[in-house]
Amino acid sequence: AVKLNGFACKNPAWVQANDFSFSGLHNPGNTGNPFGSAVTPVTVAQIPGLNTLGISMVRIDYAPWGVVSPHYHPRATEILTVIEGSLEVGFITSNPDNRLISKILQKGDVYVFPIGLVHFQRNIGHMNAVAISGLSSQNPGVSTIANVVFGSKPDISTDILAKAFQVDKNIVQQIQWRF
Amino acid sequence: AVKLNGFACKNPAWVQANDFSFSGLHNPGNTGNPFGSAVTPVTVAQIPGLNTLGISMVRIDYAPWGVVSPHYHPRATEILTVIEGSLEVGFITSNPDNRLISKILQKGDVYVFPIGLVHFQRNIGHMNAVAISGLSSQNPGVSTIANVVFGSKPDISTDILAKAFQVDKNIVQQIQWRF
Amino acid sequence: AVKLNGFACKNPAWVQANDFSFSGLHNPGNTGNPFGSAVTPVTVAQIPGLNTLGISMVRIDYAPWGVVSPHYHPRATEILTVIEGSLEVGFITSNPDNRLISKILQKGDVYVFPIGLVHFQRNIGHMNAVAISGLSSQNPGVSTIANVVFGSKPDISTDILAKAFQVDKNIVQQIQWRF
Amino acid sequence: AVKLNGFACKNPAWVQANDFSFSGLHNPGNTGNPFGSAVTPVTVAQIPGLNTLGISMVRIDYAPWGVVSPHYHPRATEILTVIEGSLEVGFITSNPDNRLISKILQKGDVYVFPIGLVHFQRNIGHMNAVAISGLSSQNPGVSTIANVVFGSKPDISTDILAKAFQVDKNIVQQIQWRF
Amino acid sequence: AVKLNGFACKNPAWVQANDFSFSGLHNPGNTGNPFGSAVTPVTVAQIPGLNTLGISMVRIDYAPWGVVSPHYHPRATEILTVIEGSLEVGFITSNPDNRLISKILQKGDVYVFPIGLVHFQRNIGHMNAVAISGLSSQNPGVSTIANVVFGSKPDISTDILAKAFQVDKNIVQQIQWRF
Amino acid sequence: AVKLNGFACKNPAWVQANDFSFSGLHNPGNTGNPFGSAVTPVTVAQIPGLNTLGISMVRIDYAPWGVVSPHYHPRATEILTVIEGSLEVGFITSNPDNRLISKILQKGDVYVFPIGLVHFQRNIGHMNAVAISGLSSQNPGVSTIANVVFGSKPDISTDILAKAFQVDKNIVQQIQWRF
Repeated sequence: AVKLNGFACKNPAWVQANDFSFSGLHNPGNTGNPFGSAVTPVTVAQIPGLNTLGISMVRIDYAPWGVVSPHYHPRATEILTVIEGSLEVGFITSNPDNRLISKILQKGDVYVFPIGLVHFQRNIGHMNAVAISGLSSQNPGVSTIANVVFGSKPDISTDILAKAFQVDKNIVQQIQWRF
Repeated sequence: AVKLNGFACKNPAWVQANDFSFSGLHNPGNTGNPFGSAVTPVTVAQIPGLNTLGISMVRIDYAPWGVVSPHYHPRATEILTVIEGSLEVGFITSNPDNRLISKILQKGDVYVFPIGLVHFQRNIGHMNAVAISGLSSQNPGVSTIANVVFGSKPDISTDILAKAFQVDKNIVQQIQWRF
Repeated sequence: AVKLNGFACKNPAWVQANDFSFSGLHNPGNTGNPFGSAVTPVTVAQIPGLNTLGISMVRIDYAPWGVVSPHYHPRATEILTVIEGSLEVGFITSNPDNRLISKILQKGDVYVFPIGLVHFQRNIGHMNAVAISGLSSQNPGVSTIANVVFGSKPDISTDILAKAFQVDKNIVQQIQWRF
Repeated sequence: AVKLNGFACKNPAWVQANDFSFSGLHNPGNTGNPFGSAVTPVTVAQIPGLNTLGISMVRIDYAPWGVVSPHYHPRATEILTVIEGSLEVGFITSNPDNRLISKILQKGDVYVFPIGLVHFQRNIGHMNAVAISGLSSQNPGVSTIANVVFGSKPDISTDILAKAFQVDKNIVQQIQWRF
Repeated sequence: AVKLNGFACKNPAWVQANDFSFSGLHNPGNTGNPFGSAVTPVTVAQIPGLNTLGISMVRIDYAPWGVVSPHYHPRATEILTVIEGSLEVGFITSNPDNRLISKILQKGDVYVFPIGLVHFQRNIGHMNAVAISGLSSQNPGVSTIANVVFGSKPDISTDILAKAFQVDKNIVQQIQWRF
Repeated sequence: AVKLNGFACKNPAWVQANDFSFSGLHNPGNTGNPFGSAVTPVTVAQIPGLNTLGISMVRIDYAPWGVVSPHYHPRATEILTVIEGSLEVGFITSNPDNRLISKILQKGDVYVFPIGLVHFQRNIGHMNAVAISGLSSQNPGVSTIANVVFGSKPDISTDILAKAFQVDKNIVQQIQWRF
């Protein structure tokens, strides 16, 4: 099949409602992992009809004190609303200022993570938390810093990371072993 | 203040978390109107920091059998998820096919309304319904068909609408009086 | 053949003048229909070489008092010039203002219909009228309101349209029968 | 006044029909010049409401054997239709092929000049000719080769042009004197 | 293979470092030609992984007094830095001003040639000169004026060029013979 | 002064060659810092005429074994060529694969770092190394991972980073103290 942006293009005469729909976003994701969080994406990979349309959605679940690690979306701004619970959220501006712009969000609060900037969330309550986000691409992409920098395949040379983060090589290796 | 896309541009050195946040999206809108629906927008008009970022969000409340009238967004695709209740939703393709692509949505279902196509929703249950949507523009715009065609200021000539909709002029006037 | 934007991509080495040309735009269209108008398009469907180039052209013929029904182009602004006759033209801005911006045009006048806004034309003379328009897409698309809202396949539920236009269902059905 | 793309931005609340219209395109331009042609533009400079809308229009008049000199539009594709007369038209592809894709056009014929490619027209009849074009920018720009290369202010060094065109300097100067 | 923008799209799972690299840009190009210059391009034709990424690079070598003839890139701005030698460079603005914006550059100087504007360079020293440029497209395209106007295949009619450049036909033919 | 994209817009009638030029890129940057590298940018901040033109250039100097730390450009692809020395370079793809696509470059080699992906360079020789890069934005932006994640102002909570990188808080603090 011919592909556009990496995804198949369906003949317009054959499209149906199912090409534009998805089910199950009310189901909590599994937060039983070291980070205590889970992301359920609804992008062009789940809804083929989103191709070229410049939008997607995710549900995020947080166990108590669960964290969505610092990451960025190379192709999308994210707008998040808290459905349940309380979140600490923030993004960091690019060089040279590297300002952390952060806030505590309650249920019904909305926050924006501008395209290409590193951001994170943390559940700051003793209950599960839930958020819904819209993203400004059907294929936003995710680069999680810890995975990209310390968990690449193959690894970045330990020497390079030791100099970049100004730490001993054994600390770099300790983090690399985790990812 | 200098404006970009019709909205003020803030000096980056002065931006703060409040430029990127909004509160109250957990509050139901007032559906006490002839359509039985209410839209709470979170666009660049509510969050100045959204300017140029290509995303916005809305909450939609539906009284039982409430309808969001046929309308389109000239600058955005919409991705909607049902938070509570059941909705009949659909969009209509452009000429010459004018296909209605519709579906009954339950809680947790997601549906896409492609940019520039007329679409609608109806609550098909006896309870209130709630949906959250992401839109692929910070300023998506809305053209509600009934308001644009029968409620413009000043009115479109009754003659023109009578010929366009192939009905008597008194029927056109009857609708125009409503809008 | 590989397609881009839904149309075939020709190997650049094989393109010829015929891939960039069209004949017959001096011929009047057939206005013998209930609307008294005819549109002759010259888009990527007629000129394959227009693909990706962001422009197209149409000729519009109007019988005396003929109407081009309210419609919009999801992907194009239109710039129209009157070749023969006199036209009443207008477009309606989006919510909440829904302003009708209209004018009477004479031969040699030019008018703009901004992308995504509903617009119409009517011949206000006893002679045939002719216009030529440029559109800012090789594939502008057309959504004619009457056809989209009252003539979709299948029909939008009569209940929904009755509530949306605030009229009795039998009036909705009367219009639906026409389209 | 604040400007966008070099042109003033009007407050949307104040726009009127006159911001979207122009008169006089039925009037022939003055072809009493060495080239025997005249271009009447209808761009954002004439219609302020065209700003950001990506379209413009021109009328071109040709005396018998009149020529629109080789030129290109840095920001627009052009689609031309012949209203009266017969034209020889063509465009030249970029390096390395530099193919001339040309055609003889009669009344009602349409031709496309892709964005950024050098093109020209010549009236090949003994009567005046007229064409209407749409262009895919509100501000297409024009670089006429003879004026840019031989008529710049100040002149390009004669040495450079002599080497570039592989001719004696006195021939370069002869052309420079003309422009 | 499926192509995008005229170049093959590789499955992301199969890409390798070689899809993003090129060798040999330290080697001088052969300036033994009538213009005394040579351009070594590194575009999507040389590095397949550049496709869609909006950037390319060239090395330019100049023999003493060598010239890069007036030309433009329909799809790219160029930013040039002088690695060795001294260059006279300039670009010409579009109609109606046709201003020549030029400068003498020394080693380490940087100059910008805006997208779509005719520009040139000349080595003004007795030694070879070298420049490196970045261009804002993976496929910038080049239209060299002399080749496009006087060397097209087939030739533009001598009549048209004589009128366009306001010279005798035999001068036009003399230049055409060279290209 | 009116600004566009954060930089002043000059009246086109007043622009001069100096608005499009910069001097000194042949001068080595100062690599006397913990990373052993220095970046000399030539962006819209240095050349005002670059505004809106989508290109910029940088010179990078590397002391022996000097490193340009992992970073990404939110708005630009980078194409780099080695002027002197040997470099180890690489970029890491986004989730879930996080592939490191790396190579050893010699003088005259060219490499591409796609927009939005984390990348780095290291001088792998005992001599200074020099590279020149083109970037596909006049204002590419830089987010250096170590600075953004461990050096933001104010700091990201140590708790969040300890969970994100799966290490003890004192290691997080050790890195935070460095940045």
